[in-house]
Amino acid sequence: MGRRALRFLLLSFLAPWATIALRPALRALGSLHLPTNPTSLPAVAKNYSVLYFQQKVDHFGFNTVKTFNQRYLVADKYWKENGGSILFYTGNEGDIIWFCNNTGFMWDVAEELKAMLVFAEHRYYGESLPFGDSSFKGSRHLNFLTSEQALADFAELIKHLKRTIPGAENQPVIAIGGSYGGMLAAWFRMKYPHMVVGALAASAPIWQFEDLVPCGVFMKIVTTDFRKSGPHCSESIRRSWDAINRLSSTGSGLQWLSEAFHLCSPLTSEDIQHLKDWISETWVNLAMVDYPYASNFLQPLPAWPIKVACQYLKNPNVSDLLLLQNIFQALNVYYNYSGQAKCLNISETATGSLGTLGWSYQACTEVVMPFCTNGVDDMFEPHSWNLKELSDDCFQQWGVRPRPSWITTMYGGKNISSHTNIVFR
Amino acid sequence: MGRRALRFLLLSFLAPWATIALRPALRALGSLHLPTNPTSLPAVAKNYSVLYFQQKVDHFGFNTVKTFNQRYLVADKYWKENGGSILFYTGNEGDIIWFCNNTGFMWDVAEELKAMLVFAEHRYYGESLPFGDSSFKGSRHLNFLTSEQALADFAELIKHLKRTIPGAENQPVIAIGGSYGGMLAAWFRMKYPHMVVGALAASAPIWQFEDLVPCGVFMKIVTTDFRKSGPHCSESIRRSWDAINRLSSTGSGLQWLSEAFHLCSPLTSEDIQHLKDWISETWVNLAMVDYPYASNFLQPLPAWPIKVACQYLKNPNVSDLLLLQNIFQALNVYYNYSGQAKCLNISETATGSLGTLGWSYQACTEVVMPFCTNGVDDMFEPHSWNLKELSDDCFQQWGVRPRPSWITTMYGGKNISSHTNIVFR
Repeated sequence: MGRRALRFLLLSFLAPWATIALRPALRALGSLHLPTNPTSLPAVAKNYSVLYFQQKVDHFGFNTVKTFNQRYLVADKYWKENGGSILFYTGNEGDIIWFCNNTGFMWDVAEELKAMLVFAEHRYYGESLPFGDSSFKGSRHLNFLTSEQALADFAELIKHLKRTIPGAENQPVIAIGGSYGGMLAAWFRMKYPHMVVGALAASAPIWQFEDLVPCGVFMKIVTTDFRKSGPHCSESIRRSWDAINRLSSTGSGLQWLSEAFHLCSPLTSEDIQHLKDWISETWVNLAMVDYPYASNFLQPLPAWPIKVACQYLKNPNVSDLLLLQNIFQALNVYYNYSGQAKCLNISETATGSLGTLGWSYQACTEVVMPFCTNGVDDMFEPHSWNLKELSDDCFQQWGVRPRPSWITTMYGGKNISSHTNIVFR
Repeated sequence: MGRRALRFLLLSFLAPWATIALRPALRALGSLHLPTNPTSLPAVAKNYSVLYFQQKVDHFGFNTVKTFNQRYLVADKYWKENGGSILFYTGNEGDIIWFCNNTGFMWDVAEELKAMLVFAEHRYYGESLPFGDSSFKGSRHLNFLTSEQALADFAELIKHLKRTIPGAENQPVIAIGGSYGGMLAAWFRMKYPHMVVGALAASAPIWQFEDLVPCGVFMKIVTTDFRKSGPHCSESIRRSWDAINRLSSTGSGLQWLSEAFHLCSPLTSEDIQHLKDWISETWVNLAMVDYPYASNFLQPLPAWPIKVACQYLKNPNVSDLLLLQNIFQALNVYYNYSGQAKCLNISETATGSLGTLGWSYQACTEVVMPFCTNGVDDMFEPHSWNLKELSDDCFQQWGVRPRPSWITTMYGGKNISSHTNIVFR
């Protein structure tokens, strides 16, 4: 049981049906900041000040008076007191500097909008830790990691900025975010319309809760990206799972796999699910950063990286060994485009700037997004959505159980027609 | 110091500048349910079911799994599954049955709107106690007494009703409340517009925070009510304070006062501030229930009770003794209209159905409403608004300190133009 739970918990970072919707942000934000030369990133110098604002740990209760320092970044090169605006990035589950450096859109439009750029770090990520090193120690310390508290942080910070920056008080503020941060931007406009005149919510899966959309839809879209990026590409991936299963049934197969995939540690039979989850998340990540220009967000990548990976996956009708060698080549586009990787580590799929611990807790409490696959409408192994299993694993890891319907209760699900000025894209 | 703090804490229930805005609800609700015969209450039989719904003690954190039973009342005599509606009373600081029996408007319109009436009790009031008898023991137990938690209770309850009552799912819900409950109705529509199509917020002082309105405006309006209800009425009251001060400087004066006012306990010189606060709150209460028909909400009263009281206060130019005898007659309209009172108790100004403990905590945390008087624009003794003193007294009583700007941050202050379908009256 311990082993099984452990595997699931790893899976909650590695496998798409547990957590990947955290990061789709960036595709849309990417397409928003389309540079004039689509093969390179926009070359805007990112100069900003790093600042801190004292926040209450608990906005919704008065029993604790504890505070912490929320980090935020301000870039005001193009800001004008008169006729300007404030673009407010509603930070999501990672280091705010990393998001700041990868949200080109805001930098691109700063001059035109005479905008002050503000990037607010989400509590429990980056340096904004309510209990310092103890922040992730148990459900008592994690109790204040919720979207509601994060939105209240944003509200208090905006009030602070308007109060303290001369000329800012009457300027319009626009919330901007991607992925979970896009949800936050939308929710912020919904809950605090007095704070922001509007929100740009990029790749914000606000309906990826309960049964608002079919649980398989996300992975189906990922599959479509691969299917359209090269002949037989998604079919090759779909067939790879059984090939891995067959090979991993023998010791020599495991050894071959470890070597063929250039893994840093040799596989045991118990690692196989983990391996497949890692590969699955790699495809999902590729879909999320399939930008039309070279980029370096989750990994250094060429333009249209799925197309590049699919060049290795043109023929699904080959032997298991050849198919998996091709899979490795495709994985290598993601993990070793720079040519620097000595071996591949199946415990990592992306930058360490993402806050995996914090996100794991959020996925175990409020942000319960059902994902599933069936291997028919998508290219993944079938995996149903199992709330009971998630709940038990969450209880074992964090001592909490998810409340899958809460986000819909709080933010309205599909019944959001009374809100205005929220751009979803 | 102990004595002083104690006196202030009593004052926080007895004196208008600390708490009276809690109850102005009822005047507007009263005028809403104007009966055809304005000298009597509408005679609608109030038949309802008493029900309970299991609520989470903490909607905004996952560390506790504790629940409690929220009481609510349902009256569905006129309800129609098709074409009907749900009127949802957002319970405020008292026993919900008492509010139910005194919100005639909802009963009056039930048939016309084919409405189901639902009266939801506010947590920490009436029977809806999150920690039972321990609910008011210390800031740890009181930590979940906030407007945000109460609104979340309402949201969960409405979801429950729509899920479990056949035909209710697609019916429009309208939030209705008065005074603090009127604020809750308005805030509920602001924060959960997916739950209610609109709100009727009666006598809801949503701007009685920070400096959104001058702190003296409420007491000025009370004074105007008295000034317009009889010649020299407010002037008589204005002069009464100094008369009390002069009389209470001697032992014989104290004794005379105790007897003239028919007090249950004889006054000491330390009770004088308390006495004046009690009288002040009486005038405020009269203003809040100055209905055009006989009623029995805070006390049994005649129609237009201020006019009746002012009949005793026509001449301010009399001796202290005569002036205060007249004041007693006026007080008696409020405290002894039934003729049943044997003596007057300066620790009580209204029904015990109000939850004074819970409200005291709320006034010490979120619901920080600045009130003040100057004795010129109003008929009361001058009393400035002193946040520091309030904070220290709150800390001594509850171990918490108020956050006076939080309500504005949360609910928008005057910047609420993006909301719709909220009727303030």
